[in-house]
Amino acid sequence: MPEELEEDAVLGLMQDRPLVLPCIFHRAERYFGHKNVVTATAGGTVSTSTVSAVCRQVRQLATAFDTLGIGGDARIGTFCWNTEQHLVLYLAAPCTGRVLHTVNIRLFPEQIVYIVNHAADEIMFVDRSLLPVLWPLADQLSTVKYFVVIDDGSAEEIPDSPRVVQYDQLLAISEPYEGDFVIADENAAAAMCYTSGTTGNPKGVAYSHRSTVLHSLAALAADVLGLAERDVVMPIVPMFHANSWGLPYAALLTGTALVLPGPNMSPEALLGLLAENKVTVTAAVPTIWTSAAPLLDDYDLSALRLVLSGGSAVPKALSQKYLDVIGIPVTQVWGMTETSPIATVCTPRTQHSGCSEEERADAHARQGPPVPLVDLRVVDPGTGAQVPWDNDTTGEVQVSGPWIARSYYHSDDHNAAFTGDGWLSTGDVAVCDRYGSVLLVDRSKDLVKSGGEWISSVQLENEIMAHPKVSEAAVIAIPHDRWVERPLACVVVKAGESLTVEEIVEHLESRVAKWWIPDGVEFIDVVPKTSVGKFSKKTLRAQFENYRFPVAETS
Amino acid sequence: MPEELEEDAVLGLMQDRPLVLPCIFHRAERYFGHKNVVTATAGGTVSTSTVSAVCRQVRQLATAFDTLGIGGDARIGTFCWNTEQHLVLYLAAPCTGRVLHTVNIRLFPEQIVYIVNHAADEIMFVDRSLLPVLWPLADQLSTVKYFVVIDDGSAEEIPDSPRVVQYDQLLAISEPYEGDFVIADENAAAAMCYTSGTTGNPKGVAYSHRSTVLHSLAALAADVLGLAERDVVMPIVPMFHANSWGLPYAALLTGTALVLPGPNMSPEALLGLLAENKVTVTAAVPTIWTSAAPLLDDYDLSALRLVLSGGSAVPKALSQKYLDVIGIPVTQVWGMTETSPIATVCTPRTQHSGCSEEERADAHARQGPPVPLVDLRVVDPGTGAQVPWDNDTTGEVQVSGPWIARSYYHSDDHNAAFTGDGWLSTGDVAVCDRYGSVLLVDRSKDLVKSGGEWISSVQLENEIMAHPKVSEAAVIAIPHDRWVERPLACVVVKAGESLTVEEIVEHLESRVAKWWIPDGVEFIDVVPKTSVGKFSKKTLRAQFENYRFPVAETS
Repeated sequence: MPEELEEDAVLGLMQDRPLVLPCIFHRAERYFGHKNVVTATAGGTVSTSTVSAVCRQVRQLATAFDTLGIGGDARIGTFCWNTEQHLVLYLAAPCTGRVLHTVNIRLFPEQIVYIVNHAADEIMFVDRSLLPVLWPLADQLSTVKYFVVIDDGSAEEIPDSPRVVQYDQLLAISEPYEGDFVIADENAAAAMCYTSGTTGNPKGVAYSHRSTVLHSLAALAADVLGLAERDVVMPIVPMFHANSWGLPYAALLTGTALVLPGPNMSPEALLGLLAENKVTVTAAVPTIWTSAAPLLDDYDLSALRLVLSGGSAVPKALSQKYLDVIGIPVTQVWGMTETSPIATVCTPRTQHSGCSEEERADAHARQGPPVPLVDLRVVDPGTGAQVPWDNDTTGEVQVSGPWIARSYYHSDDHNAAFTGDGWLSTGDVAVCDRYGSVLLVDRSKDLVKSGGEWISSVQLENEIMAHPKVSEAAVIAIPHDRWVERPLACVVVKAGESLTVEEIVEHLESRVAKWWIPDGVEFIDVVPKTSVGKFSKKTLRAQFENYRFPVAETS
Repeated sequence: MPEELEEDAVLGLMQDRPLVLPCIFHRAERYFGHKNVVTATAGGTVSTSTVSAVCRQVRQLATAFDTLGIGGDARIGTFCWNTEQHLVLYLAAPCTGRVLHTVNIRLFPEQIVYIVNHAADEIMFVDRSLLPVLWPLADQLSTVKYFVVIDDGSAEEIPDSPRVVQYDQLLAISEPYEGDFVIADENAAAAMCYTSGTTGNPKGVAYSHRSTVLHSLAALAADVLGLAERDVVMPIVPMFHANSWGLPYAALLTGTALVLPGPNMSPEALLGLLAENKVTVTAAVPTIWTSAAPLLDDYDLSALRLVLSGGSAVPKALSQKYLDVIGIPVTQVWGMTETSPIATVCTPRTQHSGCSEEERADAHARQGPPVPLVDLRVVDPGTGAQVPWDNDTTGEVQVSGPWIARSYYHSDDHNAAFTGDGWLSTGDVAVCDRYGSVLLVDRSKDLVKSGGEWISSVQLENEIMAHPKVSEAAVIAIPHDRWVERPLACVVVKAGESLTVEEIVEHLESRVAKWWIPDGVEFIDVVPKTSVGKFSKKTLRAQFENYRFPVAETS
């Protein structure tokens, strides 16, 4: 090591240990092999495995990839629910130098075809229960040499094709690889995930080994998720979406037990798993927590210490409901596919001690300050100048950090997302308080521009959803001759309840400025959702394309 | 970015954000400026400052270094207690590209001279109260252009010399640097610390920016220290020793309040600070906790959630005393200057739930499993082969990880410490249980080799110290004609108590194997300590160089 003998060269003299996923694999195998990995299958049974068994399958797949002639840096597609085998693939692809490519099973067929071809996946692993979605597209997926079917207890027929291999049979003929996994370059891609986006084709985000290890380590921090070996973690957020918020890797790094809920997303199934396995940490989008809220009383959830929600803002009333029934609020996490995804977490801070209940509820409604190694700024979309952190001035949130994307995979279509000085433009509009805690007010494209002022559709929705008879509400902008745009509220009434437009307007009058009150309220059966469970404003806007407000307008 | 347009190159596409200390500085300044930094001064007063004020001083020193003509990669020596200004230097040196060099104020004068000259410090910051130690050596410190005196309220005379500058006066003429601090190479040295070692000259460990940021992030993990913004951290372990266990950087990364105890190490002063500032996390060597134990009842320590101890093993009885009086045990941290220093932490694990009180006490007596990103192995010192993790077979502990040293600074004298395959040989002898949790049994050089078997001096000491009338005990090996070596116990009796050799032997008979019972017991006034507060076996061995056991020997 010549540098240490050379005068004037002052380098650190630390061991050269790249930040790569084999660190997580070998740690899990060596220290946490005895920990449980529980999977609820499509067949309705619950199977209990161990980290040791997961690691053994990883070693077997390492051999199998070579046997099947899969390229040394191939993309490995997955088309799976949250299961033990999906966890195996989370490790087997990157630890052998390949790239895990989790495909969102809820995308439209043409989007699935686009992204599998764009990533040029060489092999795809598919849950047997999902064959009816994927197999009809097989002819269009020309780069895929093999479809490996994971038997999840479903009865779907397995196609008789030379391209189809069964996971169990593949493992049965594959001896475990015996050495240490070595990845020399921590900047190599470890995983990919496509964001369905709002316009144009889906865009791929390529996570590096380094970014994934750092994100996992940060997730263990007390003011992030604070995962400890004693935790039992159940990621409800799909493993095909933004790394399941990094939970699988973080869990393996610190040795938690894992509960993987499989395909049954009914609130009864999920709450049953949480109770039976004494889950301490769980994570899902707000629609899951909304559907589970009325049933909380029926389950013993006393082991839960952290209920995470992200993907869209959590209505204050929902968080309060959890606080009232199970003693902990819903904790918000904010991020996106491009941010690995954890960028902010709303953990309690010193400034909240001594708060009133109302102030604390307001605090829980925030997305929180950025986690360690992530920085943020809020900029005026027009001038690009930073706006003050006065909890009042809105602007677009931009983020920076070692696990934030700098470009999209093989794409030139990303000018809007990345700033000239290397930050990510998130498209989310927010205010910041003096502590750097984010409160999202809207997606930039979902703001209602009324008479030169902005109305936050998210804030309006939250206030409407605070009405005890409202199940869901979405607000969209409708063109308006005088004010340019005015808000329309699309409201879902709780089953068995009835509600009038007047009641909603009256409810809002004490809660928002007069000029925020929607000019129209329409009752709908359900708010349409995107493939990742968010309100699909795009679908709603199409549905109300020719909508005209009633005659009695705001004047 | 050519790689993203090139087919087959699969690199992650994440922002290029080096892991450098400016990340911690800017985060602290931006998000935690309002947090308190409390310092107890040599003058006896307690001053309260803020992170903002600390950051402003960092920016002023950045200007001052340039004004004084300090080289761009100079080593910046510090000769200070734990104070606000020392914290400023922890940031100012590395954020400006220089290297923080913390000098152990308790070393012998010739060691101080050796270290400062070996590191070639260009400037030294010294507490006014420590001038009598450092200034007499100034003539021998030829690389040091300036001594900057930090006024800590002491009355020591400030030398009238062109080499002497006063900290406050320097700041008064230095405008704060206004830009962002940029360090391009995360492998550059950020800080240095010399380990006094046991033979030969002190050896320098050079921490990189990368290793320090990773170590800080890991410290936040729930199964490491779990530091959160709401914590109030008081590092008693000196900032001149192994980065004060990384607490200052970790605290700034997550925004805790800090309490810095200055020079008064009396148990009354320390316990007073802990109580008055509602400290939640504190850290010191076992001798501090031993001296504080009898006084615990007199202070309100209800805010404490984590009492960390490291540097040497914690007697079981001591940890139990803390558990009994303040409701939490002493938590052991294991590491050394070469390991940044955190390598293992003994946090409670799943396997401990349902333990009996006795089993739990045994668990607290361990040093624990390695923290995330650190790996360990226990090897037979003779063959180098790994020994089984059966909690019985002893071997030397070797460690690996991104914050573990790979060599010493400008030194060829490190063959024994580093293995051929890039691991650190720690010189500590331990057993591991099946979960990889370390239990130290001795330093390899402190084992007593009796008749071909090893006796652990540490275990013997712990058993002797469990006697209610014993304050401290150290065991050393004495040459023996028949058994090669046999143990001698040097015992300090608690003030006001009296004790006989027979009582100690009787106490041990039910606790250790018969052949472990020391052949001699000597009562001494105090166990000599090293500069970092550990038992100095070297001094004891010298003291008992010509010792002969009484005639009635083990046969």
